[in-house]
Amino acid sequence: MDKILRVNMSDQTTRLEAVPAEWAGLGGRGLTSTIVAAEVPASCHALGAHNKLVFAPGLLTGTAAANSGRLSAGAKSPLTGTIKESNAGGTAAQMLARLGIKALIIEGMPAKDAWYSLHVNKDGVTIQEETELIGKGNFAVIEALEARLGKKTGVLTIGPVGELKMTAANISVKDPDSKIRSHGRGGLGAVMGSKKIKFISIDDAGGPGIKIADPEKFKLAARTFAKALLAHPVSGEGLPTYGTNVLVNVLNEAGGLPTRNFTYGSFEGADKISGETMHDVISARGGKTRHGCHAGCIIQCSQVYNDKDGKYLTSGFEYETIWGLGADCCIDNLDDIARADSIMDDIGIDSIETAVMFGVAMEAGILSFGDSKEMLRLLGEEIGKGTPLGRILGGGAGSVGKAYGVTRVPVVKNQGIPAYDPRSVKGIGITYATSTMGADHTAGYTIATNILNVGGYVDPLKKEGQVELSRNLQIATAAVDSTGMCIFVAFPALDIPECLPALIDMINARFGINLTGDDVTNLGKHILKVEHQFNIEAGFTKEHDRLPEFFNTEKVAPHNAVWDFSGEEIDEFWNF
Amino acid sequence: MDKILRVNMSDQTTRLEAVPAEWAGLGGRGLTSTIVAAEVPASCHALGAHNKLVFAPGLLTGTAAANSGRLSAGAKSPLTGTIKESNAGGTAAQMLARLGIKALIIEGMPAKDAWYSLHVNKDGVTIQEETELIGKGNFAVIEALEARLGKKTGVLTIGPVGELKMTAANISVKDPDSKIRSHGRGGLGAVMGSKKIKFISIDDAGGPGIKIADPEKFKLAARTFAKALLAHPVSGEGLPTYGTNVLVNVLNEAGGLPTRNFTYGSFEGADKISGETMHDVISARGGKTRHGCHAGCIIQCSQVYNDKDGKYLTSGFEYETIWGLGADCCIDNLDDIARADSIMDDIGIDSIETAVMFGVAMEAGILSFGDSKEMLRLLGEEIGKGTPLGRILGGGAGSVGKAYGVTRVPVVKNQGIPAYDPRSVKGIGITYATSTMGADHTAGYTIATNILNVGGYVDPLKKEGQVELSRNLQIATAAVDSTGMCIFVAFPALDIPECLPALIDMINARFGINLTGDDVTNLGKHILKVEHQFNIEAGFTKEHDRLPEFFNTEKVAPHNAVWDFSGEEIDEFWNF
Repeated sequence: MDKILRVNMSDQTTRLEAVPAEWAGLGGRGLTSTIVAAEVPASCHALGAHNKLVFAPGLLTGTAAANSGRLSAGAKSPLTGTIKESNAGGTAAQMLARLGIKALIIEGMPAKDAWYSLHVNKDGVTIQEETELIGKGNFAVIEALEARLGKKTGVLTIGPVGELKMTAANISVKDPDSKIRSHGRGGLGAVMGSKKIKFISIDDAGGPGIKIADPEKFKLAARTFAKALLAHPVSGEGLPTYGTNVLVNVLNEAGGLPTRNFTYGSFEGADKISGETMHDVISARGGKTRHGCHAGCIIQCSQVYNDKDGKYLTSGFEYETIWGLGADCCIDNLDDIARADSIMDDIGIDSIETAVMFGVAMEAGILSFGDSKEMLRLLGEEIGKGTPLGRILGGGAGSVGKAYGVTRVPVVKNQGIPAYDPRSVKGIGITYATSTMGADHTAGYTIATNILNVGGYVDPLKKEGQVELSRNLQIATAAVDSTGMCIFVAFPALDIPECLPALIDMINARFGINLTGDDVTNLGKHILKVEHQFNIEAGFTKEHDRLPEFFNTEKVAPHNAVWDFSGEEIDEFWNF
Repeated sequence: MDKILRVNMSDQTTRLEAVPAEWAGLGGRGLTSTIVAAEVPASCHALGAHNKLVFAPGLLTGTAAANSGRLSAGAKSPLTGTIKESNAGGTAAQMLARLGIKALIIEGMPAKDAWYSLHVNKDGVTIQEETELIGKGNFAVIEALEARLGKKTGVLTIGPVGELKMTAANISVKDPDSKIRSHGRGGLGAVMGSKKIKFISIDDAGGPGIKIADPEKFKLAARTFAKALLAHPVSGEGLPTYGTNVLVNVLNEAGGLPTRNFTYGSFEGADKISGETMHDVISARGGKTRHGCHAGCIIQCSQVYNDKDGKYLTSGFEYETIWGLGADCCIDNLDDIARADSIMDDIGIDSIETAVMFGVAMEAGILSFGDSKEMLRLLGEEIGKGTPLGRILGGGAGSVGKAYGVTRVPVVKNQGIPAYDPRSVKGIGITYATSTMGADHTAGYTIATNILNVGGYVDPLKKEGQVELSRNLQIATAAVDSTGMCIFVAFPALDIPECLPALIDMINARFGINLTGDDVTNLGKHILKVEHQFNIEAGFTKEHDRLPEFFNTEKVAPHNAVWDFSGEEIDEFWNF
């Protein structure tokens, strides 16, 4: 039987609980958001004793379903003040699922001024005091834990940025190659730091494994599903070949590549940082152009990027990071961006928030646009060490904007706006404005339909259809985020008729139930409403479902587009 | 005829406008809040082109009415995000009133990267580029302007903190002795800095002066009013003798003196920083125990505080500053607090926000509790110079709390909670929670009735009657803040039957109208509702009318009281 693991850091107790009936059909985001909404007072201090940090594998995680190995982390976000779910690859999700752990809930705060670790195995979870690894970077933590506990140990860890409770801190997850994937957004690393937990190690030996109610049905559906993933041009071709960074050239062409802190929509140096260039560089240097963030991934959009001497530099090198440190900061040197990516992995900070932040920091005059040397120094020497300047920067784009009185600060609900200019790709602007998570492209990835012609086409420069597009995608995404599936399964799901039914069939076969497509849509709607209600109780109103003022007044080249949705038009989003 | 002066910094134009009929009966806070609500989009960036900075003398300012010389400054606050009115003494209010200027409205933002000054005289207002005084402290600005324009020139100025747009920046006003009074709260100095205005000089020569519709009636009423002020034990005795700092011992006795960042309710070193001690020190060193912040003040709660060599150190040395740097920071050295007060005047930062901030900074470990030497260094060398640490500190208590992950952060709507613990003086907690301005004791000073037995008595430790008390006082205060009267007229107005009618008679005699007491109450209600509506449009809800979580959970000695109002109970405030 699946169970809930509960850890109380205040009284240092742990409990193994039966899964309440109302949580039984939930996984991933659906479960983390339900638990946070039920157990965390919306008005609490996100870094105080009343917040809870919840990890939950998806409904299909641990099975042989392709791309189902994502882990959801949830809490009240110290960055946005909203509810937050952030999901990541790595090995932890599948290990937790195989241990029969539906959710790990961490609550309270230790009275003692000490650091701790959690160790999860077939018998439950134990709390241990930790001294050796405090202050260490994530790579050192993983290396030390593999030495301590064996190569196969699962690891969730925070770097110095999380220990120092900076609001852009992420939670790092060990991937199959002992490298790092991240629960990036919303400062969940600071929540883990506030609970004084440096890392969580996982040993899945002797766990009950995954029981499939109808193995034959599951196998058939899984095959259909995998075939669809491989058949779609984006998930089967674009992403495997160029990674997510395939988007640099695409967005640059579309005039939607935010450049120089969202001043322009295209970047002169785009070619130097594009997925195509990156592919050639990786190949020439003996890296890997294809790589999965978890076992069972068949899209393989990750990669291993080596330096010019063929030495490992970074992996999980994503479009949003490359866009942000590249176009938005006017840095056209892919090696420097890769170095920054590796430092961010090590110190444990969200590479999207940090990239957006550097654009604002450059506008504030803290460093010059294009100065990658100073950017690397600030990451390692200021943020990584928690100097006062480092703390301003480590608080993200909004923090820098406030400290330096900058008015062009691309954030919604204090979370940095990623990689797609909402003036020239209007659907994504609706997602940024209305997402329960603050600005988050993955919450309703309209780029698919606005730019990539996936799931039809909605003209990115016109207002018509954007609210509906974002709404449909946000509902679908909330459901997909509950399955443990990678978000990129949405591409085939939108275009290939048999893909989504196969996904639902897998869930039905796994649990011996009979969900319909409508059930899944209703689940997505329900999750969004639960999250929205939490945010309302935390003090958010429709006035927060707005983009920053400068998008309304500053035209972005080449289309000279502005953000022209009225409040009333945006608020239509919640009519479902 | 009174007029409106409008300055547009975007196109560098100025206009003299007739007073619209709907603004004719308004002055001070009533007028600034009405103009801000009417002309500033609630959702705008407070440091952007769409915010406006409005100055307005009160309805009685410039007349011979005792204590009527206060100036209101209004804008959207960059600290709180709410509407903001902050009023101050000094000479500017009366000069503007005598020039017939009902309001000075500063809007837009210069395109050019340059600094400016405004000069107001009988012909209107002119904009000039300024280079010489940029970067200078407020004392140097006043000295230079007196040399440039004559000893009598009126001055409104910002220090380096305002130039750097830190959100605790204040606007300084020259007082009758060429020292400084402040529009302290809410970061209005940053708004002035965002408009690139270093100072405003005022020459009232040749102005139309003040016309009194019924001089005889006015004279009689003014006499009654002044008599009441002098007859009341607080305004006629306590304040003139000991200044506002008379409250240290009073609040310490009451267990409501927040100590060590709101950890305790009384301070061991209280006697060393009390008003009584201060009175003796001032007397012994040849300072002045009585001093008015503007001509016509008969309460004279200000003072001149000299150092041990008899040299001027500071003036306008208020209880809230002394409490904050004293008890809340565990500093029992009045001379060091006076030095800090003088630096804050010079660099132009709110001494309440900054005092609360230092309590949080000490809790964060940036400096130790009691370390006045480091506090002085941080003020002068970090905040005054705008270093990264200085910018964190200059952003106020909330800024430090966010940057360092502190959970005991005494703010409401991001504004520091002053000088009275809401757990042991519950009425003021209702004011902090519900004020349209963020935490602000002056918005509805329940200390009068909770502690000083003025206007009756409501037990500070019980919940009963607090909401009604705060509501009545907030309504009355909004009206009083519109007259140009010092808030301390409330003491006699609450206790001496002929005081309030005399105040209303003066307004009627000044304008030849017939306001009743009900009219004045309705004006107060109207102002609160206009301000509240602005805040709602800016995204504030009842969830923001709450005190920080720690007040609910941490008991404060000696009464071991917690904040025990439910949200519903607090929300009763708005039922009027």
